Amino acid sequence: MKRFSPYTDLALEAAEAIGIKEREQKGIEVAEKESEAGRITTVRITNSEGSSRTGKPQGSYITLESPYMRENAPDQHCQIKEMLAESLAGLCDLGREEPVLVVGLGNRYVTPDSLGPKVISGILVTRHIKDSLPNELKGKVRPVAAVTPGVMGLTGIESGEIIKGIAERIEPSAIIAIDALAARSASRINTTIQLADTGVTPGAGVGNKRFSLNRETMGIPVIAIGVPTVVDAATLVNDSLNSIIGSMKEASSHGSEFYRMLEELSDEERYELIAQCLDPYTENMFVTPKEVDSVVESLADIISGGINMALHEGISSNNVDSLL
Amino acid sequence: MKRFSPYTDLALEAAEAIGIKEREQKGIEVAEKESEAGRITTVRITNSEGSSRTGKPQGSYITLESPYMRENAPDQHCQIKEMLAESLAGLCDLGREEPVLVVGLGNRYVTPDSLGPKVISGILVTRHIKDSLPNELKGKVRPVAAVTPGVMGLTGIESGEIIKGIAERIEPSAIIAIDALAARSASRINTTIQLADTGVTPGAGVGNKRFSLNRETMGIPVIAIGVPTVVDAATLVNDSLNSIIGSMKEASSHGSEFYRMLEELSDEERYELIAQCLDPYTENMFVTPKEVDSVVESLADIISGGINMALHEGISSNNVDSLL
Amino acid sequence: MKRFSPYTDLALEAAEAIGIKEREQKGIEVAEKESEAGRITTVRITNSEGSSRTGKPQGSYITLESPYMRENAPDQHCQIKEMLAESLAGLCDLGREEPVLVVGLGNRYVTPDSLGPKVISGILVTRHIKDSLPNELKGKVRPVAAVTPGVMGLTGIESGEIIKGIAERIEPSAIIAIDALAARSASRINTTIQLADTGVTPGAGVGNKRFSLNRETMGIPVIAIGVPTVVDAATLVNDSLNSIIGSMKEASSHGSEFYRMLEELSDEERYELIAQCLDPYTENMFVTPKEVDSVVESLADIISGGINMALHEGISSNNVDSLL
Amino acid sequence: MKRFSPYTDLALEAAEAIGIKEREQKGIEVAEKESEAGRITTVRITNSEGSSRTGKPQGSYITLESPYMRENAPDQHCQIKEMLAESLAGLCDLGREEPVLVVGLGNRYVTPDSLGPKVISGILVTRHIKDSLPNELKGKVRPVAAVTPGVMGLTGIESGEIIKGIAERIEPSAIIAIDALAARSASRINTTIQLADTGVTPGAGVGNKRFSLNRETMGIPVIAIGVPTVVDAATLVNDSLNSIIGSMKEASSHGSEFYRMLEELSDEERYELIAQCLDPYTENMFVTPKEVDSVVESLADIISGGINMALHEGISSNNVDSLL
Repeated sequence: MKRFSPYTDLALEAAEAIGIKEREQKGIEVAEKESEAGRITTVRITNSEGSSRTGKPQGSYITLESPYMRENAPDQHCQIKEMLAESLAGLCDLGREEPVLVVGLGNRYVTPDSLGPKVISGILVTRHIKDSLPNELKGKVRPVAAVTPGVMGLTGIESGEIIKGIAERIEPSAIIAIDALAARSASRINTTIQLADTGVTPGAGVGNKRFSLNRETMGIPVIAIGVPTVVDAATLVNDSLNSIIGSMKEASSHGSEFYRMLEELSDEERYELIAQCLDPYTENMFVTPKEVDSVVESLADIISGGINMALHEGISSNNVDSLL
Repeated sequence: MKRFSPYTDLALEAAEAIGIKEREQKGIEVAEKESEAGRITTVRITNSEGSSRTGKPQGSYITLESPYMRENAPDQHCQIKEMLAESLAGLCDLGREEPVLVVGLGNRYVTPDSLGPKVISGILVTRHIKDSLPNELKGKVRPVAAVTPGVMGLTGIESGEIIKGIAERIEPSAIIAIDALAARSASRINTTIQLADTGVTPGAGVGNKRFSLNRETMGIPVIAIGVPTVVDAATLVNDSLNSIIGSMKEASSHGSEFYRMLEELSDEERYELIAQCLDPYTENMFVTPKEVDSVVESLADIISGGINMALHEGISSNNVDSLL
Repeated sequence: MKRFSPYTDLALEAAEAIGIKEREQKGIEVAEKESEAGRITTVRITNSEGSSRTGKPQGSYITLESPYMRENAPDQHCQIKEMLAESLAGLCDLGREEPVLVVGLGNRYVTPDSLGPKVISGILVTRHIKDSLPNELKGKVRPVAAVTPGVMGLTGIESGEIIKGIAERIEPSAIIAIDALAARSASRINTTIQLADTGVTPGAGVGNKRFSLNRETMGIPVIAIGVPTVVDAATLVNDSLNSIIGSMKEASSHGSEFYRMLEELSDEERYELIAQCLDPYTENMFVTPKEVDSVVESLADIISGGINMALHEGISSNNVDSLL
Repeated sequence: MKRFSPYTDLALEAAEAIGIKEREQKGIEVAEKESEAGRITTVRITNSEGSSRTGKPQGSYITLESPYMRENAPDQHCQIKEMLAESLAGLCDLGREEPVLVVGLGNRYVTPDSLGPKVISGILVTRHIKDSLPNELKGKVRPVAAVTPGVMGLTGIESGEIIKGIAERIEPSAIIAIDALAARSASRINTTIQLADTGVTPGAGVGNKRFSLNRETMGIPVIAIGVPTVVDAATLVNDSLNSIIGSMKEASSHGSEFYRMLEELSDEERYELIAQCLDPYTENMFVTPKEVDSVVESLADIISGGINMALHEGISSNNVDSLL
């Protein structure tokens, strides 16, 4: 799980915080498309100014949003798997035979951080049986391997280093890394999947020099897939405060002075002020939906299903299991 | 898990919200005792006025507080088990042979609500082997049964009804019920154990007419043991807001007007205002520490250890397992 | 899990051990039907002689057999759910509004014995929301409750007593109890579902006087659903030995003397001889497939799906989850 | 988990199958030592003849045997941890600062094979915090990393390859690999720990060319620690048959002819005969104690405790957790 910060892990939320006009000047392109099961938004960060304004590396970010993700809605889940498979194929063009390594980041023992390891349980792994497949499957099934490196607190090793070591031995053509994210808005928790061709930095922000998984460090494309499963407590208070002040400002002039003062603060200053006022124990707390345990299972199923469809041929969301 | 409300499940927090002088007039007695491993506070609510001010039934509430609870501190955990055993014996005086039913409330599939079921795993259950025990143990071991009724959403039956049905058949002399609680202060999460002789209402507040577990409904003493494992999101924002406004008021006169307006609101009005301003999804969210998964295991071990020591003779925190 | 004994929990296996001619005289009727996904065999034990020969109470036993049960075969699993729903309806004729209690027997912490509790996780529980359902669902959804009483070693209470206490309070019209069974033949492990209208005796054989769940003790129909998940070690050796001796007898005259001696022993004597010769530790061992952990999950899904289809109207194996 | 074979994973069982006199000639040395908590037997295989007779690589094998391992006996578990720590130090002499990689082999989702991953949960991991430790701990705490590579069926990669890739990056001075084993005798299940300086071949026997973890492949010492958690079904029948025939031979002359015939078969031939006569499904079955789920937890605690004591200084079985 990425460190809880006032800055969201979602490029879409980072872009939304910037005025539409300004975006164009700053190398931030946003395109939206509606579908039956939900919305697909593509954010492209095309230069270093866009990158520094959003705090995100240059590249493409595809966000799938659907309220159905956190509901029991098998039909819509199938549609989302298809959207995910298509988006993934769009970010990473590979020949049918090229091997892929799927990586489940995060801590399997902490529910909101267990998304990555749970996705791995659903991945159709084929690298070790490629040679013994029946002929009719040989052209359809890609060599896929899948690992869960664990988190540094439990292994003593940066996840990035573990993946680098494994990739050097098995030489995949691309890496797909799944991780739980932090969002700014509570309504995006468990309703949003972000795909990015910019890679991922496991545990970013906890320490200083973390080993990133991206094209530069690994020498191959690294696609990151993430779902926000938590909001950090200070962000929640910050956003709630803004909303409260805003609604008061509209209703009366009571809060205007206070509001002006808060407005004069930068985002960072305001967040720091709130973080200081929070109970010191809150620092290590997160905000997550009550039903997170079951929703993470369901999200893992959606993501592994989508990845399987993207990586192999002739797989629909129904026949994955019976294929092999 | 009790419903998340602006009102805490802890009688101690409810009492603290009332001025010391006022407490005495209102039938709220608070006594504090320090020990090496932590603090023991006893709150006695002695009349109906005290009950309505605190929102808690008349009776005795013992609160054990220790920061060691959420740390890996085996020695202190032993001391807390002893404090718990002593407090439990104080609340419920039973003959050595009288049978006890221990009940683990809550949902085993939702981590912060899984405390009750996890405690049950550690209870030394003896009711079924009482007759076949060696003679030297017979005078020491009490007949103890232990059940986890599940939550109404999964069983279709109120937990209270399930326990009533079982108690009518096995006729215990007392019930001990363990449940996860909600606190107001983040610093009390996973650092506090409350024991009460007033019983418990599983899932209180979710619906209207809930079946309480107490002396009236069950006809025998019902001791509740609980640990706050969550703070609800609106309470967190509420308390943070108060803290922010307070610190601003001190620093300058900027927020004074806003503060006065907020001050004029009652606690309930202010909480409602905040709840309305929160993202609608936040309603179903809770705030919990990142390490909740492992801390709940450790708390369950402390509580089951303390209960075992209170219910049987000659058990220390070390020899529980090897006794039988 | 029923005690591992040389006698199988499957009425079908008990009937098979008796010659076809003899069955008819002894009040044992066996009827077989093939379907696409598997075979349905109905055993009816119609008098006390049949009961004492098979060691099973008088009543009807329906056995569904399909090798697909332990494979990843979603389509066949749907067919088996339908077979199960039909068989269940045949054993227990209830009005659409009559309430049912589903009981998951066994120990959730021991994989081959966790079938019952796992089935309960998939049951569509409606008793608590019956009144708040939309009108179009009201005629279709039956009030269903579901509990997992745990095993006596962990609760100190017989499962039967717990269920009796709960049933007295909520007054269902029928009980459906799910339990893991022991079979005689390894090939029946995880490929067989038995339904019976004769109830079940949780943990039968471990002690002497166990509380049975059946029409006599509960006053309402009790349908038992079970899957053999283990073979006991002595039975495995016994059957293997018979098979070895048999194959040797055919091949040569070498083993004839030994075989005659074994033949002179009764089934019970032979089993006892083998049990004595086994390593003493083997007594507490069972034989189970390597893949038992994942197969039990899949079986639980089949059984809960079939029960849901039988209990509610307008449910197919696809829309169970999205109904409510 | 190593493939179930008529040949045990325990060097001690392999040596016991050879007559005492013959052992000496064949380069197999066996030394035994009794202690309060159990027995320590050291088997040394000193030449290639000993290796081919036992089917084990040349090297040292230390076997700790104690019936307390599968009981709730905290005091004896502490003694066993100390025996393990001592034995481990004897097999692998390392400077206090030299880094070690601990590897948990096996499948966490299959209970009897989950020993390795469960041990890893208890390992005191320090590699990532070595530099930030307080000075008084710096000389005492060794840099330790710990990983669970998963099994090839789930990752698509041989465990050995994963470990090789990680070791090449982090360059430990030694590897300690934990794995579940198969024994020949049911009485050794969960009562035996084997340590060996010969490494381990994860999943040996399943395929042909498996990647071994040993000094040759890794370039550093590889210590294997294993506990037999299963007996394969054919071995159980084989051994039971021998025992039955043996007891009959003593009692009478009935089985003598049959016995002679069996005696003429080689061990392999006899095992093959039995395997053929077994129900075909038995091939994929194993024999394991009913209580395997809880015993594996307890064994994992013993082994991780012993490893921690061996790797760091000033750690006793009580203070492991509170050290850091």
